[in-house]
Order: sequence, then C-alpha cells, then structure tokens
Amino acid sequence: MALNPQYDAIGKGFVQQYYTLFDDPAQRANLVNMYNVETSFMTFEGVQLQGAVKIMEKLNSLTFQKITRIVTAVDSQPMFDGGVLINVLGRLKCDEDPPHLYMQTFVLKPLGDSFYVQHDIFRLGIHDIA
Amino acid sequence: MALNPQYDAIGKGFVQQYYTLFDDPAQRANLVNMYNVETSFMTFEGVQLQGAVKIMEKLNSLTFQKITRIVTAVDSQPMFDGGVLINVLGRLKCDEDPPHLYMQTFVLKPLGDSFYVQHDIFRLGIHDIA
Repeated sequence: MALNPQYDAIGKGFVQQYYTLFDDPAQRANLVNMYNVETSFMTFEGVQLQGAVKIMEKLNSLTFQKITRIVTAVDSQPMFDGGVLINVLGRLKCDEDPPHLYMQTFVLKPLGDSFYVQHDIFRLGIHDIA
Repeated sequence: MALNPQYDAIGKGFVQQYYTLFDDPAQRANLVNMYNVETSFMTFEGVQLQGAVKIMEKLNSLTFQKITRIVTAVDSQPMFDGGVLINVLGRLKCDEDPPHLYMQTFVLKPLGDSFYVQHDIFRLGIHDIA
C-alpha cells in the first residue's frame, strides 16, 4: 500500500477525536471502537496490555473526572502499509493534581475507509525528576 | 512476518547503541548506517526529512560537543511486520544549556538479520512552557 499523503491531517484529526472521547468520562468507554479486540497494543506507564478488552479495563480504571489538556505538538509520518505514526507532546492536569508533561505515540492502521489504533504508548514526563 | 518476541531487548539494545554513536561527535556520522537512503523518515523538532542524506545533514549540523543524557524510560512494542516500535523518554543536557526533557520515537524495520530506522521523531519537552 502506498504512503497516505493525508498523513498530517489524519494525525491531527485523530488526536482531536481521541482526546475528545478520552477527556470526557461520559464518552471514554467509546474508545473501545478505536482498538482491535486482538491486535492492538498499549503500553501505559510501562504496563503492557494487548486487545481492546484489557486496554479498556485500564482506561475505565482511571478515576479522575476533570482533565485539562494542552496538546503542544502533533508530529505525524506516513507508514509504508498506509498507516500513520503519530507522536503527541502535551500537558495534562487531572482533577487537582499539578500539571504534567506527557508523551503519547499512536500507530494507526488502515481498516477499510478508516483506521484503528494498533499501537499506543503513553508516558508522563514526571519520571525524569530523579 | 510474526511478532518478534525479543522486541524489548531489541529496543533497549538499539537505544543504547544509537545514543552511544549520537552522543560522541567523533562517531555521530556513523549513524548513517542506521537509516535507509530513501525509505527513512525523520521529524526533528517539527522539521520533516526523508532519506539518510538529509537526515545526516541535519544530525551533522548539530554543533554541541558535550551531551549528558539520561534515558528515563524505553517502551517497546512488537510490530506485525517483524519490526519494533520504541518510545524513549529522557533528559538531555547539551554543552552549557540547561537540561531538557525529550521524547524520541523509533520504528525499526527488519533487514536481513538486522534492523534499520524507518521512522524517527524527536521532540524536546520545552515547548509546553507556554
């Protein structure tokens, strides 16, 4: 499959759509539709999870109600299978916690006319204060 | 191609090897061997580059002599073409600059018995101070 020339718009659009669902506790469960039941991988703060069920167990276990998020940079690259690699740098504030820098990487894979998340890696930038 | 069960060791080994070359000005030019002349992509602080020649022009233009680097976290995932997705969170201090958090994502693609870097995205974490 060829490189998708729309990779930048796909990356930015996906990030907006994903975080709109993620940041609203009433909508977060709908993220299940973005993952494959078997072939999606997530690494959340170093914990490896595979498949939509385990990924959603993790996401549904997050108890904060209010998220203030600033997306600082979205860097996307086209992949040779028609997918898109997306890197996000941003800042998160959950409930009354102090704000933290975070990074998240997604690999979107084409599925018909759409995409699903095959790879998802999330890290808060607090670990470097050692 | 199957998922590579050694993905975690491959990711950690690659990161160590890559930064050993990167952080030594006398060896940095050898990074050219890690990229493909056509099919490697780099996004360096938002600037998109394709192919080993342009990538090395960028890396060789970096003028700092002394890098102090702390790699805080290396998160790797196996990919379905036998490749490895690697996310690095770390801290960098170049010459007399203040230390900065950074994130870097690599996608390694299998090539014979080895791998090359097909995707490379680098961002300093300074942009979130807005």
